[in-house]
Parts: sequence; structure tokens; C-alpha cells
Amino acid sequence: MPLPPSARADIERLWSTIERSAEIGRGREGGLARLALGDADRDMRDVFVGWCREAGLAVTVDKAGNIFARRAGRENDLPPVLMGSHLDTQANGGRFDGIVGVLGALEVARTLNDLGHVTRRPLEIVNWSNEEGARFSPPMLASGCFAGAYALDFVHDRPADDGPRFGEELARIGYLGEAPVGGRDVDAYFELHIEQGPILDAERVAVGVVTHAYSSHGFLVEFRGETAHTGPWPMDRRRNALVAAARLLVAVDDIGWDFAATGGKATAARLAAWPNRAGILSDWAQAVCDVRHDDPAASAVMAERVLRAAAEAAARAGCAAEIVDRWDWGGRIFDPELIASVRHHAGLLGYSHRDLPSQAGHDAYFLARICPTAMIFTPCRGGITHNNAEFASRDDLAPGLNVLLHCAVARADR
Amino acid sequence: MPLPPSARADIERLWSTIERSAEIGRGREGGLARLALGDADRDMRDVFVGWCREAGLAVTVDKAGNIFARRAGRENDLPPVLMGSHLDTQANGGRFDGIVGVLGALEVARTLNDLGHVTRRPLEIVNWSNEEGARFSPPMLASGCFAGAYALDFVHDRPADDGPRFGEELARIGYLGEAPVGGRDVDAYFELHIEQGPILDAERVAVGVVTHAYSSHGFLVEFRGETAHTGPWPMDRRRNALVAAARLLVAVDDIGWDFAATGGKATAARLAAWPNRAGILSDWAQAVCDVRHDDPAASAVMAERVLRAAAEAAARAGCAAEIVDRWDWGGRIFDPELIASVRHHAGLLGYSHRDLPSQAGHDAYFLARICPTAMIFTPCRGGITHNNAEFASRDDLAPGLNVLLHCAVARADR
Repeated sequence: MPLPPSARADIERLWSTIERSAEIGRGREGGLARLALGDADRDMRDVFVGWCREAGLAVTVDKAGNIFARRAGRENDLPPVLMGSHLDTQANGGRFDGIVGVLGALEVARTLNDLGHVTRRPLEIVNWSNEEGARFSPPMLASGCFAGAYALDFVHDRPADDGPRFGEELARIGYLGEAPVGGRDVDAYFELHIEQGPILDAERVAVGVVTHAYSSHGFLVEFRGETAHTGPWPMDRRRNALVAAARLLVAVDDIGWDFAATGGKATAARLAAWPNRAGILSDWAQAVCDVRHDDPAASAVMAERVLRAAAEAAARAGCAAEIVDRWDWGGRIFDPELIASVRHHAGLLGYSHRDLPSQAGHDAYFLARICPTAMIFTPCRGGITHNNAEFASRDDLAPGLNVLLHCAVARADR
Repeated sequence: MPLPPSARADIERLWSTIERSAEIGRGREGGLARLALGDADRDMRDVFVGWCREAGLAVTVDKAGNIFARRAGRENDLPPVLMGSHLDTQANGGRFDGIVGVLGALEVARTLNDLGHVTRRPLEIVNWSNEEGARFSPPMLASGCFAGAYALDFVHDRPADDGPRFGEELARIGYLGEAPVGGRDVDAYFELHIEQGPILDAERVAVGVVTHAYSSHGFLVEFRGETAHTGPWPMDRRRNALVAAARLLVAVDDIGWDFAATGGKATAARLAAWPNRAGILSDWAQAVCDVRHDDPAASAVMAERVLRAAAEAAARAGCAAEIVDRWDWGGRIFDPELIASVRHHAGLLGYSHRDLPSQAGHDAYFLARICPTAMIFTPCRGGITHNNAEFASRDDLAPGLNVLLHCAVARADR
């Protein structure tokens, strides 16, 4: 029995889970501060696992803390169709970023339960650990591990900005699972997400068909110098690592402006230094930055300029620079057949839709390395995100949710 | 009875106190991390007060945590001659900066006890709270309060970089004293200090006669912007406070280089931001910086450029800038008669000596506002300071110590 074309997910039920999620790890007014592997992330995971079990799903946790909730199909030896995103947020995060993709997938399963529809292939809902990279660098760490981009030891060894290692924190919150990370076949991956940009909202378009991703390059750079007094120590003998990091971040911002006319972005995201206090030069500094462009060639030029700027900043400040970590993603990574399916179902269901690229980073980028992958965007108000004012209404979310329902079931039933 | 010209302080006894001090609040190998009003500062204060009491001195603590140890004179209604410096250090501090001035003054008192010499005026040894400004901004906070530059409420309300207020921390470590801060006559103030510059060591000169202080201007600037996603958010809508602060600090470094040929210095000392994490723009940042020049006119130009740079950095990053705090010191502030006395006694005792300016900030700068003040510099190896490699030998310290002995007694006996 195919899914009836009239089938619709229950937007009110999805909304109630979003509202419950919005109570866990409250940040500033209206927002969330549910950083990866913190207590609030644990509490949210516990609630999510409870919901999955209530829906009759079989929950497993892997060694990277990724949570999978499986809904059996008719042929359970076939690889599953995976749907999900992440439940962690930024320090000034919103209530929708990532959350809509996980809880939307749960709503799909609940809807299929209501309809009594059993797909041919099993369905799995996934919550990826540490998508944001707000506490552990790099972002999309655990989906990267699932896709084979990062070794598990590397993942467990990542230090939090506030000290503990990723593996220690997973164990502490009770989500260091036993399942191996990845290494199994996945039939397809769908990720529903708010656009995190202004286009759909401005154009009053209901569904974003994500065709590709901005080419992005992220860097974690460290500088080493020498402490000395801020007073008598001559300028030409100074080795102030804080100056080196500040020079890099200004150069990165300049690169962003140089490419702004063609939609490029470059971001100074983080600067830490030690001792970083009045009266003394710092002998260590860390900078996190990234560059993004729709054109991979332009993005590569931007990345090259960042590397040159890091070397120049270090030389100017008498310091040594080291690229401690680097991450690269984006391009035409999504599956043409799945993209076409998203576009097709949006039209079939009567929703306005348009093609557009994704500019943020998403777990889907790593999944695209190991299985056919597609993303579905919903509008969000003004494109505001990574901000407590982030908002998407029921009307914004319902079309994308229903496209997810029909695309995932079509794929699982084929 | 005047002090015999042959009188000498006991350098070995001073050295033993410096070695004991070097055990309290150890930092990196050979260095100290005894930040103001931390546990180690408390422990050092306790040891210092014990030594003062053993030497028969009367200890009082004022409401800014300044410790005074008084050695009675023959005419105790006369204002005292004050000698001292600070026992707090930087996060990667040395074992001599400030410490030599406090423990050297204690050694003067011990020497007078041995000689049975009672001065006409009382002598007081002082340890000023938070000279370094490494945990509470601004530096020289409590000597500034003693001199009337800062209100006591302002002092108590200063927040530590790690959270608590100055007044709370004083109470916590047991050094929120009952004596009023300042408001009393002081006959003179002498501060013995390592040079914190390379001149005396390079020229093998035993005693530095400090004629004046570099004109210095310090700033604590805050920037406010808006969080947003580092990916999709367009460059021209970004309000990244981290970029504003980085731009200011780079401009400050450039100012330093522009004035380097004439001995000017400008320092990027601190940058803090929030959330300061990968994936999100920061909506708050704080920068601490300073400029210094021997020529007050040049220093004023540098300060003007810092203020302009702060406004420009904010405008460029779409942020608002606020000068939250500002401190200015230096110039020809020391007393000609006391300077002459330092020069005279250095010669009389047979030490090589030279005039030179002070480039670092010192509590003496504030004392100079309310009483005749002089500083005596000792050599330190390579001029290295605010670094665990800071070092001054017994031979480096003995001449300055003896000059302090004779100058202070000459003043107190006149």
C-alpha cells in the first residue's frame, strides 16, 4: 500500500515537541544555550529517547553519542532510510536550528504509526552529536565520524573550550554508546532544516529544494610567542600572540568583504589568548575562522588567503603559527535523484518551492559522502539564526515536514 | 644619632624572604602566578604580616586591603615616611617585580632594628593591593584609591576577570581592613623596584635614579553587536563584536610601530568576547590596550589615535563602542629633592648610577599626587619581566636596597 497522497504529518504534535525542547537548556529570552554534551543536552536526549520509545522505535547509541531510533520495515535486511539532524545548539541559539530536523523525523514516524503504514525498508531517526562545534571543534564532529572522515579516537580526544574531552563528557552524560560508529549501509539520508537565511521568508516560498552547498573552509590556528611587560619591552622584541591572532581575524574579515559582492562570507568566530590580561603580552592565542562561497574556486582562493594571512600575522607579531585543525565541506554533494524527489513532492503537495544552496554547515554534508542525501529547507523569519530571536511558525514548518514525510516514505517503499 | 654611612642592609636576609615568597603562588617553572586577592595572595599577605609583627611593626589594613606596617619614630605625631610596592604578580609573573620593593622595605626596618636606630619620623612599609591589574582593572587600583584618584565604592565594585567583585574577594581572603583609605599626611614615599627594562643590566650600572615616568594611557573598551550565523548571514548585515575588538587591537599595535623609533610602545593586552565560539558571531567583546611614550605630547597623540581607532573599528564592524575605563599616568611627577637624594646617596655609597625614566606603571605614580615621591631601580637580567625568567641577583639588588635604607632614614631623620 503506498502512502496516500493526502497523508499529512501532525504539525501541532511537532510543535508541542518543539515547545518542550525549548524548555531544556534555556538561554537568553526565547532562545536556547544547549551546548553539546552539557547537562541540558543530556536532559534533551533523555526526553527524545523517551519519545522514541513511546513511538515504538528501537533506540541505539553509538560510540560517538549519535542516537538512532529505528522503525522496522517489511524487509529489515535492507539498509535503512535515515532522517535527522541535531539537538545541540549554539550559546545564543534558537529553538529550531537542527531541532526541527530531529523532531520532524520523529513526527514522520508518529504519523506513519497513526496511518498504520509500514515501509518496505526500515526508517531511522538520528540525532547527531555536536553539530554546532560550539563547545568542541570541529563542528559536525560525530556525523563526520559516522561517514569515516574522523577517527573515533580523534573524536573522543577533542577538548571542550571549558576543559573536558569529548569522550569523557559522553561518558559523564551517559551517552557513550556501544554501537560502532558508521561502517554500515544507509539507503538514503534526508535532513529537514530551517533555511538559516532570508530567501524563502523574503520570497514567501514554502519549501527550499537544496541543490548544493557553499564551499566552506574552516581553520583553528594557534600562535605562540613570549610573555613580557606591556611597558618597557621594545616593539621590535615583542612576540605578542594576541596581536598575531587579532591580525589574522582582521585579515579574515577583510577577505569576507572582498568577496561580499558575489555572496562570499568570511568569519572571525573565536579568539582565545593566555594570559590575556592587562600589563602582559600573551604567549599563546587561538583563532577560529572560516570562509564560504557558492563558487568552489572562489572559496579556494579565500582559503588560500587565510593561510597566507595566518603566516603573515605570525611573522608581523614575531610569533609562530600552526594550523591545528582544518575542515572543508560543500559543493555539489547532494543526490540528483533525491533532489528531484524533493522538488517533485513539493509540487505534488501544492507547495511553492525554489532551488537554493545551503550556506551553513550541516550533518548532511558528511552523510552525502556515504549515501544519497538531500536537504529540505523551511522558511525562518528574516533569516535570523544563531540568535535567540530565531523563529519559524507552524505555517513555515508544515510544508517542509510533509515533503519530508512523502520523500522519505517514497524512498523507503521503493 | 645619624645613621652611620657604613650601615648596610642584610642582602642575605632579604634574599631569604624573596625565596620564601617565591614558594607562594608558583606559576610556570621559576615564576609566580600570584594574582591579586587570590588564595596565593592571601597566603603571601599572611606570611608578610607575620614577618612584620616579628620585626615589632604595628600592622594595619585599610578598606582597600593595603597593608601598612609601622615602625615608630621619636616624634610619632609627624607624618610617616612610606616605603613599599606590591606582592601581587602577573599570571606569568616573576619573583622580583614589586616583591623587592615590599620585602626591601621590610629589610630596611629589620636593619634599623639591628642597629638600634630610631628615626625621628615614623617609617611605614606598605603592600598595595592589585598593582598589576592582572585580575581587576585598572592596575594600581588601591594606591590610586589611597591617593584619592578612585572612590572606595568604585574599587570595591571592580569585577575580577573570573567573576567576583574586588570588595567580595578582599572580605573572602580576610583583608577587608577597617582603616580609612588615605586621607592622611605622608611625609614621603620611596619605591624600590627592578627596572623591568634592559638599560641598567646592559650598561652594568648598579642604581637607577628615576627622574620621571613615561606618559601612559590605558583603555578598557567594550563593543556590542548581534549574534548571527557565520555562514548565511551577509557581510553587510554583520555586527560581529569580535571583529571590532580585533580591529582595535591591530590598530593599537600599528600605533606602537609608528612610534617605535622614538621609544614609544602600544600594547594589545586583552581581548574577551561572547559567545566567542565557532559558528556564531559574537555580540560582545572587551579590549584592553595601552600606549606609552617618554614625550607626553607624543603619548597624547597615540591616545587620541586609540580613541579614533576604537570608533573606526566599531563602525567598520557595525558595532557600538564604549570606553568603559581609562587610566592615565606618568610625566615629571617625582620630587626633585628626593630624586637628588637618591642620586646623592648612590654616589656616597660608591655605586655606579644613572638617571632614567620609568616605563612601566607603578604605585609611586599615584603616591606622587599626594606626597614627595621617588623610585630607585635595580638592574634585572636582560630587562626580562612579566615572565617566569625574570631575575635579579643579590648583587643586582644590594646597591638599590642600601640606597633605599639611607634615603629613607635621611628623610625620616630630617
